Amino acid sequence: MKIAFIGLGNMGAPMAVNLLKAGHEVGVFDLVDTAMKQLEAAGAMACASAQSAASGAEVIISMLPAGQHVRRLYLGREDAPGLFDALDGKPLIIDASTISPVDARAVGEAAEAHGLTFLDAPVSGGVGGARAGTLSFIVGGSAEGFEQARPVLESMGKNIFHAGEVGAGQVAKICNNMLLGILMSGTSEALALGVKNGLDPAVLSEIMKQSSGGNWALNVYNPWPGVMEGSAASRDYQGGFLTDLMAKDLGLAWELALDCQATIPMGSQARNLFALHASQGNGGLDFSSIQNLYRGDEGS
Amino acid sequence: MKIAFIGLGNMGAPMAVNLLKAGHEVGVFDLVDTAMKQLEAAGAMACASAQSAASGAEVIISMLPAGQHVRRLYLGREDAPGLFDALDGKPLIIDASTISPVDARAVGEAAEAHGLTFLDAPVSGGVGGARAGTLSFIVGGSAEGFEQARPVLESMGKNIFHAGEVGAGQVAKICNNMLLGILMSGTSEALALGVKNGLDPAVLSEIMKQSSGGNWALNVYNPWPGVMEGSAASRDYQGGFLTDLMAKDLGLAWELALDCQATIPMGSQARNLFALHASQGNGGLDFSSIQNLYRGDEGS
Amino acid sequence: MKIAFIGLGNMGAPMAVNLLKAGHEVGVFDLVDTAMKQLEAAGAMACASAQSAASGAEVIISMLPAGQHVRRLYLGREDAPGLFDALDGKPLIIDASTISPVDARAVGEAAEAHGLTFLDAPVSGGVGGARAGTLSFIVGGSAEGFEQARPVLESMGKNIFHAGEVGAGQVAKICNNMLLGILMSGTSEALALGVKNGLDPAVLSEIMKQSSGGNWALNVYNPWPGVMEGSAASRDYQGGFLTDLMAKDLGLAWELALDCQATIPMGSQARNLFALHASQGNGGLDFSSIQNLYRGDEGS
Amino acid sequence: MKIAFIGLGNMGAPMAVNLLKAGHEVGVFDLVDTAMKQLEAAGAMACASAQSAASGAEVIISMLPAGQHVRRLYLGREDAPGLFDALDGKPLIIDASTISPVDARAVGEAAEAHGLTFLDAPVSGGVGGARAGTLSFIVGGSAEGFEQARPVLESMGKNIFHAGEVGAGQVAKICNNMLLGILMSGTSEALALGVKNGLDPAVLSEIMKQSSGGNWALNVYNPWPGVMEGSAASRDYQGGFLTDLMAKDLGLAWELALDCQATIPMGSQARNLFALHASQGNGGLDFSSIQNLYRGDEGS
Repeated sequence: MKIAFIGLGNMGAPMAVNLLKAGHEVGVFDLVDTAMKQLEAAGAMACASAQSAASGAEVIISMLPAGQHVRRLYLGREDAPGLFDALDGKPLIIDASTISPVDARAVGEAAEAHGLTFLDAPVSGGVGGARAGTLSFIVGGSAEGFEQARPVLESMGKNIFHAGEVGAGQVAKICNNMLLGILMSGTSEALALGVKNGLDPAVLSEIMKQSSGGNWALNVYNPWPGVMEGSAASRDYQGGFLTDLMAKDLGLAWELALDCQATIPMGSQARNLFALHASQGNGGLDFSSIQNLYRGDEGS
Repeated sequence: MKIAFIGLGNMGAPMAVNLLKAGHEVGVFDLVDTAMKQLEAAGAMACASAQSAASGAEVIISMLPAGQHVRRLYLGREDAPGLFDALDGKPLIIDASTISPVDARAVGEAAEAHGLTFLDAPVSGGVGGARAGTLSFIVGGSAEGFEQARPVLESMGKNIFHAGEVGAGQVAKICNNMLLGILMSGTSEALALGVKNGLDPAVLSEIMKQSSGGNWALNVYNPWPGVMEGSAASRDYQGGFLTDLMAKDLGLAWELALDCQATIPMGSQARNLFALHASQGNGGLDFSSIQNLYRGDEGS
Repeated sequence: MKIAFIGLGNMGAPMAVNLLKAGHEVGVFDLVDTAMKQLEAAGAMACASAQSAASGAEVIISMLPAGQHVRRLYLGREDAPGLFDALDGKPLIIDASTISPVDARAVGEAAEAHGLTFLDAPVSGGVGGARAGTLSFIVGGSAEGFEQARPVLESMGKNIFHAGEVGAGQVAKICNNMLLGILMSGTSEALALGVKNGLDPAVLSEIMKQSSGGNWALNVYNPWPGVMEGSAASRDYQGGFLTDLMAKDLGLAWELALDCQATIPMGSQARNLFALHASQGNGGLDFSSIQNLYRGDEGS
Repeated sequence: MKIAFIGLGNMGAPMAVNLLKAGHEVGVFDLVDTAMKQLEAAGAMACASAQSAASGAEVIISMLPAGQHVRRLYLGREDAPGLFDALDGKPLIIDASTISPVDARAVGEAAEAHGLTFLDAPVSGGVGGARAGTLSFIVGGSAEGFEQARPVLESMGKNIFHAGEVGAGQVAKICNNMLLGILMSGTSEALALGVKNGLDPAVLSEIMKQSSGGNWALNVYNPWPGVMEGSAASRDYQGGFLTDLMAKDLGLAWELALDCQATIPMGSQARNLFALHASQGNGGLDFSSIQNLYRGDEGS
């Protein structure tokens, strides 16, 4: 299949590589030259512009940093027309960026006005998942569009979810990541409380994991150093999913809650904890380092 | 084995019945006559006092409402000596009540002074688990005591955890239930936020369950009506684990955090949410009815 | 002085009337005809457009609902030029709307590019203050601009504060109103806790007012019914500053905190409490009705 | 008047000195010899026991660290009778300690059973207020008892409040100090948010003080360094009312809320903020140093 891939950052580049591995013909575009070179070496066709990459493509995939970039790519601005005005065919449009549902819906409506099918398909799984081809895609858009996109997405990911109409992918991702922030801070809090009262963190982790406190963090991402081999906690919280990014995702939950006047006491609490932790110099550590906030003097 | 069982309430009675079913000889005592009659019918020996039940027993199990009752039973008070002063042998002492770690340790120290082995062994699993013999026991006490108690506890439960020294069982249960309160309110919050933005609660539940938001509530206790067959949510939040009891357990977490000066922003938030929900007339509903708090007018 | 006044809503209309009373010559514009008629009756000159009102004015004052309206008025959009492009002189620009600091700064920069002096001057004091001419103005902009504006603002208000550069007026108002939300919910919480423990709300109010708990709510806006004659609480929370508006102002604090990555645990808590209270059907009551949230069944 | 004063700590000693200055005859008792010597030098009669000090006294005043000490003094324990059993007359009993309302009521009931009038009269104002004789007394007990105590209390304090029946003094103090914790953290949060957005902390303080954000902290205890001369903030948060003590007082609010199942989201938040701040090594700083928590890297 002929695919255009726009945006070759830390996530986009390995995703495009996996499309090539799956046998697709991939035209790529990015403003950064070295990224283009790298993909060319992997077999992609480096294009001079997004429009050139899109020319003749059956599917266009974008992976960009923020909503404004996605809007600009597809909708254009005063001085430059967007891709929607420059397409020669009717390719399927898949935006895998994490942006606000409002932006996703705006682009989706413009796509519809141009007779195009648009899907918002934010991912989870990080750079590791992008490389291994084990990302999760949470997709918003029509059922037909979703079925059309599925084989392409399966070249890059493992779990492909259909969340609902356009924008629903972004909403579901925000909800999930808000819950993740709550789980991680809550789990850290419970562990710190137990340890302060003499419990062994590994023993307490095991008990809660098998009981009604069981959750993803206890299963695969234990925040206490040494409890789980290979965890971020066991390598001084280096790498992984950064505190700054978790704070940002929880900020998206705030924006969503403001838009619809929802009450989010637990998510707000989590956002403030991660923001505080970041403000104390820990924004570049893995988000499970929130454990240290609960350990006071001892954790720093 | 000859076992004394003190306290035949909603939990204690079916636990004692399971001991009888396992072939143990059980002497029982409770202040309530009908409870005694019921156990007698099931094959237990009804005794006139705790002391009489304890006479000649190899194991004494107590299941009482609160710390003051446990203290009174074993330590006595001005006008009446406690069981520890009245024992003829050296039975193993297992208190399955949910009490504060401070109370558990006080009784444990008195036991040690009398040359007795004491275990605190609070349970989770509710009345259903007590009847089915599938309770979890979270045990504090010496490794020897734990091994001695294990076969007896296995007659009444499925998961038998050793949390640490005396008091550790109570600490671990408090930590787990605090995390449960956080998970349940956090999951309800994420679902409400998604639904307010057009998502289907079952679809969103499935996505989060398989992603990094996965937790016990999504697995077996989904709070949104109709998502999970047989859940409390699907029967108008009748029965189950009551809001009032969750608020009380989160109150134990507050007490524990005050004792050791721990910071518990997520657990405090959860406690206030359940207490607020209870104050608005929902104390007698299942605790997953916290979902309604997030639904505002629509949920009531 | 010749003044143009754009925006004759609940706040703007009485403000413009006060300018007339102070002897200024006022040209007004609003899209709503009845508002124009009313001002004409009070002595204003009704103009056919904002541009016509601005023609020859020494000062332009705008009082509009939201940032988008202010941007559109001064900056225009694709199909229509803004006021800044249509002015014949160099009038002082005062925007009294409550908008985000980001919007205020954008308009301020455009003003500067046109050689104009711009002030953001959000007010507090409500419709009552607008009528009585006792508003507070919290002004952002240059010291010279502020001194130039002061006599005009004094025709409409009592306290005129200079908060700092352009945008600072909006920031200071957001900070103040966030603190107000915290004070009001905190005061309600303290009163409810005392009353639940047998205290008389009036006695407790008096003690706290004279002690280290003293604050604006206890001084002039006591949330407990009957404690203060003439308070919103004493007339079933009718009128006043609505719960919905307080929730909205606290939402502006969330946005500001997201922009600068600030941690606002107390303000977030207050926002969620007012949003919850609104979601339970109380958005149209005075914001001091948050007291009822703390009274549970009894308060409803 | 003949007065017995039991408990000569940092607070009690200067209070007793002020009674002497007012011309009363004061018999004192404390377990610490140096405290006794100091009071003797100031004109008090050092007594060998509380009972001896109480002998013939018209008023007994106690100022002890915690509820257990107050119970022990008046009610005694197994091995030693309490003061109530040893009194020869019917002196007025005033306990100025800060203890739980539960303890205060227990002692009050015992007093009543002995035909004695008991008042709980916790103070605010700190060591400085104790020395200067400007303490506030918040008194629980009968109106007659209160009138009888007033002249004595006025020798040691300035504001004498009657909060209600026995225990009400403690309740009112807890409510006030909870509100104080809320005000101080809320004010710090608002100031940090404003400063992060370019405002001058002194200017913002002045605006909020005169607006609806006005409160005790802005009036007399501004938490930002340099804004208020002589404030704790302006001397590196040395001295004053310690973070540890504020955390402890907010803990009393938790206990009170647990007893009566009240919802205290704002007070809980404040308690966790002060507890976190203490856990990061700031327990010995003035409580207004919570400002630093909001300043992240910059504040430390």
